Amino acid sequence: MNVSKTQLLKFCFEVFTACGMPTADAKLAADVLVCADLRGIDSHGVARLSGYVRLWEAQRANMQAQPKIIHQTPSTATIDADAGLGLVVAPYAMKVAIEKARQVGTGWVAIKNSNHFGIAAYHAMMALEEDMIGISMTNASPLVAPTHAKERMLGTNPICIAVPAAMELPFIIDMATSNAANGKLEIAQRQNKSIPLGWVQTENGAESTDANELKRGGALLPLGGHKGYGLGAAVDILSAVLSGANYGPWVPPFVSFLAPLPDLPGEGIGHFVGAMRIDAFRPKDDFKMHMDNWIKRFKNAERIDPNTEVLIPGEPEFRMHKERSLKGFDLNQNVVNDLLELAKKFNLSL
Amino acid sequence: MNVSKTQLLKFCFEVFTACGMPTADAKLAADVLVCADLRGIDSHGVARLSGYVRLWEAQRANMQAQPKIIHQTPSTATIDADAGLGLVVAPYAMKVAIEKARQVGTGWVAIKNSNHFGIAAYHAMMALEEDMIGISMTNASPLVAPTHAKERMLGTNPICIAVPAAMELPFIIDMATSNAANGKLEIAQRQNKSIPLGWVQTENGAESTDANELKRGGALLPLGGHKGYGLGAAVDILSAVLSGANYGPWVPPFVSFLAPLPDLPGEGIGHFVGAMRIDAFRPKDDFKMHMDNWIKRFKNAERIDPNTEVLIPGEPEFRMHKERSLKGFDLNQNVVNDLLELAKKFNLSL
Repeated sequence: MNVSKTQLLKFCFEVFTACGMPTADAKLAADVLVCADLRGIDSHGVARLSGYVRLWEAQRANMQAQPKIIHQTPSTATIDADAGLGLVVAPYAMKVAIEKARQVGTGWVAIKNSNHFGIAAYHAMMALEEDMIGISMTNASPLVAPTHAKERMLGTNPICIAVPAAMELPFIIDMATSNAANGKLEIAQRQNKSIPLGWVQTENGAESTDANELKRGGALLPLGGHKGYGLGAAVDILSAVLSGANYGPWVPPFVSFLAPLPDLPGEGIGHFVGAMRIDAFRPKDDFKMHMDNWIKRFKNAERIDPNTEVLIPGEPEFRMHKERSLKGFDLNQNVVNDLLELAKKFNLSL
Repeated sequence: MNVSKTQLLKFCFEVFTACGMPTADAKLAADVLVCADLRGIDSHGVARLSGYVRLWEAQRANMQAQPKIIHQTPSTATIDADAGLGLVVAPYAMKVAIEKARQVGTGWVAIKNSNHFGIAAYHAMMALEEDMIGISMTNASPLVAPTHAKERMLGTNPICIAVPAAMELPFIIDMATSNAANGKLEIAQRQNKSIPLGWVQTENGAESTDANELKRGGALLPLGGHKGYGLGAAVDILSAVLSGANYGPWVPPFVSFLAPLPDLPGEGIGHFVGAMRIDAFRPKDDFKMHMDNWIKRFKNAERIDPNTEVLIPGEPEFRMHKERSLKGFDLNQNVVNDLLELAKKFNLSL
């Protein structure tokens, strides 16, 4: 089924509104979700809409959350998300970070008591129009095993860094700290294909090329081995130990049919966002001119295969965003069915 | 040859002093270098001493540098390192970051016109005794090829994040953004062993397990593929585009026999350091108690092999540091010869 940006935005807005979300929040949450689809990160877009609804039905997400700053200094804040959706509280936190950066050069906000925040890039990119560098990260339900462990202890804990340029597109790295995200496994499962070594291990910790290992109690593997374990762990600590959220194996599952563990050490899941004003370091026009130079030089690096270009982080997603915004795109049939069920439940039309 | 910590500290101090470095700086530079050896990062310790001396002889490093803050806001600063050694200017920058964090919660410092700064962990760890989280990164001479490129465009650009705990050892991730650092290739070369796929590519960009590819014009490969390329690129941008240092392929080589490229876009190499006060986010005792809990839980993760423990990032280096500080350690014969030549040159005894 081919869908347009407008159609999806409207539908997500109506679903969130039907769950009792205030208008401005529902508009924002819809924008964050659909932005993922437009950028080609289908696993984090409208495919998750029914998941958020089920969390609300299970009373594990508060659609009328009122996030509050519970601690602050001139360059930092800690926010209690009031069990709301990360889709809404992360942009709110980013605004706080940006305002602090305006005042004292940088702003850094740790968030607890939240739920999944969609794609990290949406939040970090908010800094770009302010001529700031944006940073965002989050912890997530445990799927990744630390080096030498069988157990799932970390989420795919993504990090995003967004940097403005002048004439060139911004530089945007938005990466999970695992070798592969769950979405890639699902694609291999559907196509009945084997996956590269290094993506997963079996429930006993053995190497495997079977995309079904995760379902059988196996685990995802950290990016490039022990370094990815350290990086994912650092994201967990900044997002959750610093904010007062749950960390490691205690991060509550996104899926509503799995209950959180007992005796949680924190509240909800955690995020960490930041903004750094470029001109807190050097004149912004100098910086942006050099960013253009950086980008051009890397794009012109000598290619291995003359037909395969060297890309700048973020470039494929911008291309996809442009194409999908103009032409719409095909939604996976499972996702369509999911949305049609939501339409029925809330008496809406897709 | 077995050497002691004291012996190495004294020798490095005397060599730096002989190059005209002021006493306090020479003491600090010696401490940073020897700290690398004590932690087991032999490639970044006294093995590099003669390299710094040759840079000075080639008039590319200023042993009497007077680093200056050239731009600042309450939470940021940019420092011109005056062509000094990163070994000295990075701790200086870290002190500036810590002082800013005391005042406004966090402090972030970009450094240009510098030279190699040793191990990233030394600088980030300075934040620990202040109950702050420390962050440090640097760019470096180009050895790593971006995804789909033949050309060496990035250094091994390391990132360190150091986090204090209460009773447990601090959490310290200090990682290159390449799959393997040059030091590991050198070990394989000496032992005439092949290396895993993914560490290097040939000068034509083909896969290889030959540790000698780098010498033949090949390149190191980024951590876990395109994600490591993005991460190393982000380190390059924060360290150099933000500070006004050279970036990408223009970063001047550490070895004095290779000249910098013409028409450089910046000055020297660049670093980026930061400090975040724990209690700018939550009470520090709460945080440290949860860090202890985090660490214990991860150490107790179910093991794949009952005899192979799950380690916390930084733990192997702390163990090595303890052992080597007490018992001394064996220096590689090539390094000993290098130090003996320095001893002769400056009329010192090792």
